[in-house]
Amino acid sequence: MPKLRVESFTISLDGFGAGPDQDLNNPLGVGGALLHGWAFSTRTIQKKLFGAEGGESGIDDDFAARGFRNVGAWILGRNMFGPIRGPWPDESWRGWWGDDPVYHVPVFVLTHHARPPLVMKGGTTFHFVTEGPVVALERAREAAGGKDVRLGGGVNVIQQYLRQRLVDEMHIAIAPVLLGAGERLFDGVDLRALGYACTQQQASRQATHFVVTRQ
Amino acid sequence: MPKLRVESFTISLDGFGAGPDQDLNNPLGVGGALLHGWAFSTRTIQKKLFGAEGGESGIDDDFAARGFRNVGAWILGRNMFGPIRGPWPDESWRGWWGDDPVYHVPVFVLTHHARPPLVMKGGTTFHFVTEGPVVALERAREAAGGKDVRLGGGVNVIQQYLRQRLVDEMHIAIAPVLLGAGERLFDGVDLRALGYACTQQQASRQATHFVVTRQ
Repeated sequence: MPKLRVESFTISLDGFGAGPDQDLNNPLGVGGALLHGWAFSTRTIQKKLFGAEGGESGIDDDFAARGFRNVGAWILGRNMFGPIRGPWPDESWRGWWGDDPVYHVPVFVLTHHARPPLVMKGGTTFHFVTEGPVVALERAREAAGGKDVRLGGGVNVIQQYLRQRLVDEMHIAIAPVLLGAGERLFDGVDLRALGYACTQQQASRQATHFVVTRQ
Repeated sequence: MPKLRVESFTISLDGFGAGPDQDLNNPLGVGGALLHGWAFSTRTIQKKLFGAEGGESGIDDDFAARGFRNVGAWILGRNMFGPIRGPWPDESWRGWWGDDPVYHVPVFVLTHHARPPLVMKGGTTFHFVTEGPVVALERAREAAGGKDVRLGGGVNVIQQYLRQRLVDEMHIAIAPVLLGAGERLFDGVDLRALGYACTQQQASRQATHFVVTRQ
């Protein structure tokens, strides 16, 4: 059975998955970019995000790479797609990633505001789903053609899927930074009661990686 | 200047410093003992807590050992001293640790209920302080004779000292377990705004260790 996976989702030592006050200049919220030093340094992310050769191999790269393996579709919360809130003023916002986004598969964006699908270069099509997380997952599974679905975030969207026990596996990295404020991944979600357990822990110089698995 | 230090304070992956429902059989709350696997396996804790030879050396032991170095006095919240709430019914409760507690120095217990000092074997005397954290720290510093003061916990007591920027250095371990409920160390304390930073990260197989320092 294909899985629903969270991958490379990084939180700060004090538990925040993003900094506060996301806007056009701070896609990850203020301070949020500090979280992702481990990922940006890897060969995998250098290649995927910047088309660059180079970057580091090792534990961090192993985790970054597994995040792209066997992924047939993505689900994103609307704030991961862009900084616009409320109804779409027009169709000019096409994501943070330029004409050829990193996904290269269908991406299902959860939103309360309908919008026609957006076909990008390189195989990425953004589908805007207004019927909620369960329908988004059904559509993503269908589009994934037998591969897994990767749940990109943010915090609120991951929590919605966790509360329904729909997430099969979650790779979380903790970065050794303090954000002080923002959204907490583990707030209001009792993972123990929901039947999840931490099944792996492995650290690099820049982050500690944990795998949480539904039992 | 002698420091106020938190040492070997362990939280779960989901951020809890103790499990819920502390009582006589669960000094660390339900599930809380899972947190401390890394510490119990060390040479230092085997020796200090159980008088046993053996246990592991390495990263975990290095962190356990530094927690006892240059410590002239301790401060504990009342719940770390025992499970009794409200006024002391009598003086029969003498701590969790038997006649010869692990401290071997003066220990200042924060409580709302006065009680005469309790002299134990091996150099430990419990002093009960009803005048609040700042007075407890003054008395502990004086008793420590130029050495540092170690702040044992629990969560609520550490937070009180952090909010006043009185903690100089804090060693936190994250154990790869999910507790799901309990008290969160980082709840309601904006360490970034308070001027703290994470200055060290080092992992063993059983825990990841972080040092947080006042800037």
